This record gives sequence, C-alpha cells and structure tokens, in this order.
Amino acid sequence: MSSPPSGLSVLPVTGLPEFSPGDDLAAAIAAAAPWLADGDVVVVTSKVVSKVEGRLVPVPPGADREQLRLKAVEDEAVRVVARRGPLAIVQTRQGWVVAAAGIDASNVGQDALVLLPEDGDASARGLRARLREQLGVDVAVVVSDTFGRTWREGLTDVAVGSAGISALIDHRGSVDAFGNRLETTRTAVVDELASAADLVKGKLSGVPVAVVRGLAPDAPDPDPGTRPLVRLPADDLFPYGARDLVGSRAPAAELVPRAGELPAVAEAFRIASAALPEFPVVLQYGGEEDGVVDVHLTDAVTTTTAVNLGALLGAAIVQLHAQGWTTRWEPAATAGGTSLVGRLWLGTPPD
Amino acid sequence: MSSPPSGLSVLPVTGLPEFSPGDDLAAAIAAAAPWLADGDVVVVTSKVVSKVEGRLVPVPPGADREQLRLKAVEDEAVRVVARRGPLAIVQTRQGWVVAAAGIDASNVGQDALVLLPEDGDASARGLRARLREQLGVDVAVVVSDTFGRTWREGLTDVAVGSAGISALIDHRGSVDAFGNRLETTRTAVVDELASAADLVKGKLSGVPVAVVRGLAPDAPDPDPGTRPLVRLPADDLFPYGARDLVGSRAPAAELVPRAGELPAVAEAFRIASAALPEFPVVLQYGGEEDGVVDVHLTDAVTTTTAVNLGALLGAAIVQLHAQGWTTRWEPAATAGGTSLVGRLWLGTPPD
Repeated sequence: MSSPPSGLSVLPVTGLPEFSPGDDLAAAIAAAAPWLADGDVVVVTSKVVSKVEGRLVPVPPGADREQLRLKAVEDEAVRVVARRGPLAIVQTRQGWVVAAAGIDASNVGQDALVLLPEDGDASARGLRARLREQLGVDVAVVVSDTFGRTWREGLTDVAVGSAGISALIDHRGSVDAFGNRLETTRTAVVDELASAADLVKGKLSGVPVAVVRGLAPDAPDPDPGTRPLVRLPADDLFPYGARDLVGSRAPAAELVPRAGELPAVAEAFRIASAALPEFPVVLQYGGEEDGVVDVHLTDAVTTTTAVNLGALLGAAIVQLHAQGWTTRWEPAATAGGTSLVGRLWLGTPPD
Repeated sequence: MSSPPSGLSVLPVTGLPEFSPGDDLAAAIAAAAPWLADGDVVVVTSKVVSKVEGRLVPVPPGADREQLRLKAVEDEAVRVVARRGPLAIVQTRQGWVVAAAGIDASNVGQDALVLLPEDGDASARGLRARLREQLGVDVAVVVSDTFGRTWREGLTDVAVGSAGISALIDHRGSVDAFGNRLETTRTAVVDELASAADLVKGKLSGVPVAVVRGLAPDAPDPDPGTRPLVRLPADDLFPYGARDLVGSRAPAAELVPRAGELPAVAEAFRIASAALPEFPVVLQYGGEEDGVVDVHLTDAVTTTTAVNLGALLGAAIVQLHAQGWTTRWEPAATAGGTSLVGRLWLGTPPD
C-alpha cells in the first residue's frame, strides 16, 4: 500500500491556559506551539481573543444573566434582521449578520458574557506581528467564530478576522479545462480554514487554537482582512426575515428624492396587484414633481374601491421598502369629490 | 523546536481520470488512493458523482446553453426563494436552498450541464459500500458541493450527501467547564469536512476527491445521511427574499381553517399599524366562525378612512402570509351604509 501524497495538516495547539483580560495571547501561543513555521495559518477562537482584549460584559452576583445578554445583543447590533421569540438575528457593527450578535454565554465564567472582538482584523494583525516577534515566523492568522446558516441546520466556524491571507480567492475570469469561463466563483478560504480548524478544536475540548499547515498563503498588501467577506446592502437579497419585513419599515419624516420613483411604483403596484387579486381596482398614478407620485382612483369612488386601492397601496409600500425605498403617504386634502386619493413620497432617508 | 501534536490530515487524491456516465467511481478512487484506511473520510465533489450517475443535461450543438440552464433550474426547483435578474435562489427537491439549483456549467464539456446528484446520501452510501468491497476499509463518505451564503461573500464547500458519519454533532444539554449548559450548539461536521477538503482540492486543480484522516467518526445506525441538515419550513426565518415576499403570496381558492386566526390577525394589524403610521384608522375585527374574521370600519366611512383601512389590510395580509397563513378577502355585499367592510378568510391551502 503506497503512502498518500502530502496535503494539509490541521494541528491542535494544546496546553493553553485559561485567558483573562490583559493576558499575552501571542506569548501563550508561542510557548504552546514553538513548532510554528512560516506559511502556517493560526486559527484562534474569537472567544479567547475577546477575553484577553476585555470584550466582556460583567454579570454581577444576583444579576439576571439572560436580561444582560439581551441588552448586550441590542448594544452590539446596528440592525435587527429577524426575530423570533428570544432569538434575534442581527447585523453587528463589524458587518456580520449573526444570531445574538455573536455574544456567547458558554465557555466563560457565570460572571461574564463574551462579545465579539471589536475589530477581529486588527486582533489578527496584532497576533501575526507578535508571533513574528516571538518566534521569528511569518504566519497568517484567522480569528474564528461559530455561526448558524440560513437554510441549513447546525453551526460551522467562520472567520471574523484575518491577517496575512486573502479572505477570498478570486477565480472569476479564469477558464476551466473545458473552456468555460468561471463567472462567479470566489472561495471564502478563511471561512474554510476556520471550519477545518474547528474539526480539530471540536474533537478535543478546551483547545481554542489550531494551525493549518501546508497552504502557505501569500499575504495581501494592503491587507483588508475579512472586510471583503461582508456582503453590502445592495447585494443582500435577505435584509429582513419574512416575518420582519412589514414591521421593519422606518418612519420617514424627511426624504431625499432618488431617481426612478415612477418605474419603482409601477413595479410595486404590479406585484401587489398580482399578489392580491381579490382587491380589483383601476388606479392611476403619475406626477411631475421629483420623488412624488399622485395616486388616483379612476373607478367610481366607493368604500369597496377605496379599500381595494388602499390594500394595493399597503402591499406596494411594503414592496417598495423591500426594494430599498423609504416612503411617506399624504392623503389628498379634498377627499370625496375628487379622484385624487393621495400622494406617495419616495426617496431615501437623510444621512 | 518540538514537533506538533498529531491532528488531522487533509490529503488530495491525485491522478483520477475524467469521468463519464457509467464509470466506476469507487474503483477509480480505490486505484488512485490504495492508502485509504479505516476511519478516513472521503470527500467527493458532487460533480464527479453526477457525471458517473449521468445527472447531466445534454446541450446539443447550436443550442442556447444559457436557456437550457435556466430551464434546468426550473425543473430542479420545488420553490423559488429569491430572484434577481438571472440569479434564482431556489429550494431543490433534495431540500437544499442554493443558487441556480446547484446546476453547474463549469468543469464540464460545453455539451452538457451538471445537475446535483439525485440523492447524494444514496450516492455516498454506495461509494462507502464499494470502497469497503474494493479495499476492505471502513471509511465515511461526504459528497460536497459549492454553495453561497446569505450574508457573506464568497463560496464554501458544504455536504450534499454523506454516509458513515453523523452530519451533526449534538452538544445540546452538555455542560461546559464553567457550568454553563450548552443550549443550541450543534456542529455541522460534514459541512466543515467539505470545507476542509476544498482547501486541498482548491489549491490543486482537477482534484475532485480529498481524504480527511484522523477524525475516525462513528457510523450512525440507521444512517440518515445529510437529511438532518435540511432546515424545515417551521424553523425557516427566510423563506423568501425581501423583494419576493409580497409577490410570493399564493392564490387561495380553497382554505383549510387552522386555529389561532384571531391572535394572528391582531398581531398582523398591530405590525401593519406600527409600520404605516400615516394611515390612521380605527378598525374592529372579530367573528365567531372558524377561520373567518369580520373587518369593520368604526371611523366615519370616507374615502380616506377606507383607503387607510385598506392599506393596513394589504400590509397585514402580507404579514400573515409571512407567518405561514393563506388568506382570502371578500368585500361586504352591502358597502356604504354599513361599517362592515369585508371578511378575511384564513387558513392553510388544501394539500
């Protein structure tokens, strides 16, 4: 039986101590893994990074730990994406969309909660520089955390910080062996590294650091860390959970006009009409002014036609919001005798 | 410098040929990796599984490959989750939610498209049994594919089939070293294995199989494969993309009543009212009959109050749909003189 070709190794870093704020994590890793070598990728569980950086919420004796946890989630979140019972999926200041803002109540004393590192890329850069000082080695660093997935049960480890390695490997524009151009393939290599490391960390317990050897990544310069992994709003098809879309509409006292309001309203009414066929009504909309659309009833004005128009309007406003518009409705002052029912203002909120 | 403790190895299986329908994949792997050993996890790219299983859509000379691809996506999908331009995120018959139904136009000849394996777990079981026959080894098998993620750029490999290994490692109910009970932690270990294998497969090119050595998983019995990874509808907070929610409402000619319609309507109107504060109206709803809610205007009936009521109704219906209800609206026959505006029927569609 011949031996296998060489590949990658995923090596646990054993013998690390419990960490507290102010501890020298790099020195501890250097002491526990003097075998670190150039080209290694050191994957560090975010929890120990947060602990040494003091990213902890203290839980005083007698305090309600769960209440403090919920408050911390709110403090760390810039946006609630979806909510169900006590579960909140939020976007954090770092841009990650994660349940409970990534705040962890496990593997920490009962007297504290652990937040995500303030800036995981900076943490990774710091560790990388300090490991070079300590051991004279050129390693990449990935800070990992455990995230859920939208449509798959179970959690996997992903990167919330990195240094010395490109987060994405871009295959776009290259051509495969059959002459097909690869259009959309970018591999999130730091996430795959975090998952690979978790196989070793999860197998043993109390092992917060693992090393992937054999990949020898090139360090990018400048190094954007994990920033390229954050999906920007324009590309996000799931900015809200389905149960959270209607309620997510922000009130709009002021609006900044934005081009394209008439086609957007046309599409929104078309979608609303198709979805609500039991509210038949003939309506008209248009207008000259930037960002304002007049909405008219051209059917006879009855309670039924007005309710029908309203239903389409309500659904269309939800649709417009899903498309990134902010809206404000003003009913026409002269109700009853005229077919003008109101005006819909569209735009974006002022910054 | 001491040597590292032993961990996992991720080993490429090199020297495999191109595969065609009917080829013996297990025999080819056995020939290329005679070093396979008990406890190894063999991770096979779904593409080569699909190729040997004939899960290909032929593209005749002169045919429009992109048109055939779009049609194949529709054939493989049971549900469109979100759509933007040519991008469709769908749920496949196997339960996976994935862009373009996982259909791949790369790494295959211009004369074909590659579908996902019909049943990746069965494929994995077959490979596991055949590798035991060929080499006398007890290995686990993971069939992997490359998926995107909702809020993270870049793709990672995940499992679409498995055999001889539990897809999820369940840590729920266990207690950490600090006495905290771990409530929600289940690790999707087969997905992490797929990602680890991709680090080796992606580094080299044309390497569709990699082996993870050192994990030595226990084989579950019975073996549900990757079925536990599929998130069921009741737990899915993102059944639709935000832009697709309003339009996703299915028409309801018939409804099966379901308990809880009044609290659901109350919550939907509450959410709609909070989201659409510029449609103020006093409405009343209630009713005795199962699955039917009477909706009354208690304000003076004017065009404005009727539009306001309609707007809340339209938004509330969208919200009810997001909560899993199906609805039908019937306007009241006696419009004008009465405050009864209509009846909302709620339930689930007949199976």
